[in-house]
Amino acid sequence: MIDKVRCVVWMTGYSGSGKSTLAQGLHEMLSAINIHSVIIDGDIIRQQANADLSFSDNDRFTNAKRVVDIVNNKSTDLVIVSLISPFNVIRDYARTNCICNIFLETFVNSSLEVCEKRDSKGLYKKARRGEIVNFTGISSKFQTPVNPDIIINTETTSVQESTLELFKKVCGYLKL
Amino acid sequence: MIDKVRCVVWMTGYSGSGKSTLAQGLHEMLSAINIHSVIIDGDIIRQQANADLSFSDNDRFTNAKRVVDIVNNKSTDLVIVSLISPFNVIRDYARTNCICNIFLETFVNSSLEVCEKRDSKGLYKKARRGEIVNFTGISSKFQTPVNPDIIINTETTSVQESTLELFKKVCGYLKL
Repeated sequence: MIDKVRCVVWMTGYSGSGKSTLAQGLHEMLSAINIHSVIIDGDIIRQQANADLSFSDNDRFTNAKRVVDIVNNKSTDLVIVSLISPFNVIRDYARTNCICNIFLETFVNSSLEVCEKRDSKGLYKKARRGEIVNFTGISSKFQTPVNPDIIINTETTSVQESTLELFKKVCGYLKL
Repeated sequence: MIDKVRCVVWMTGYSGSGKSTLAQGLHEMLSAINIHSVIIDGDIIRQQANADLSFSDNDRFTNAKRVVDIVNNKSTDLVIVSLISPFNVIRDYARTNCICNIFLETFVNSSLEVCEKRDSKGLYKKARRGEIVNFTGISSKFQTPVNPDIIINTETTSVQESTLELFKKVCGYLKL
């Protein structure tokens, strides 16, 4: 079915770890070398196609399954997914079911403490006040990826450095 | 003499405009896609090979001529030069005498006011106090490039954005 390289960069990490920022940066760097990619952003998917789903464990899994379907319906050679995907079972499902030759589970690694301190969307405050239930890190668990293909530390490195590191690693896998 | 693409990215602009930072960022992005480049940095050349030269108009020209010689002795496909090179005659000399198929005069554009405000190396203060003579923008002129191949605005855009913009443009010229 696959007659050329097709790559999925599946980014997992806490809310506020920098997944969307990295996705955008990677997309732009790839675009500079004429590799077209699309970004599937969990936040946007949640507002649109998957607005019917809660953040229960089951619905998180359903959400991820639908994201995999969206990935498989994209015709670009490179798909970047930005999704908290907090459980091993979700990431394993994605690895098994995304139609691609190269699946890169990418752990965007910032500690919960740092992500909560950033709280760029004000969600951690709401979660702490109980206004959001099943919030990853506060009232829902995040399982550290067991054997990710790529780890990007966004806690101590700048956006520019970590984006470049991700770009380098993805290019390495693409054998560019 | 040239049997493959050889490119020189010649960056001109005020001290503090961001030439060295852009050079480093471009070098790293190119390295991610296995394009090896070398950086020739005016500040370093001045401390080493050209330590005998002053900042008089004549010595600036001599400095640039020697930089061109250094460029022509590099065997990499891509050479990045970071040099104030404030006069049209210097940049025209470089364009004419650098052995390459693609010469990209790159104007790193920040106003003197902004560069002086940054004053990352404290040189503007020294120049204002008269401790440095013939300092570009203060006691020596900078001619705005007439027809540069690339213009990067570093006054209002972030380092990450302007580096990406430079990378995109260079990749475009390299037809990547």
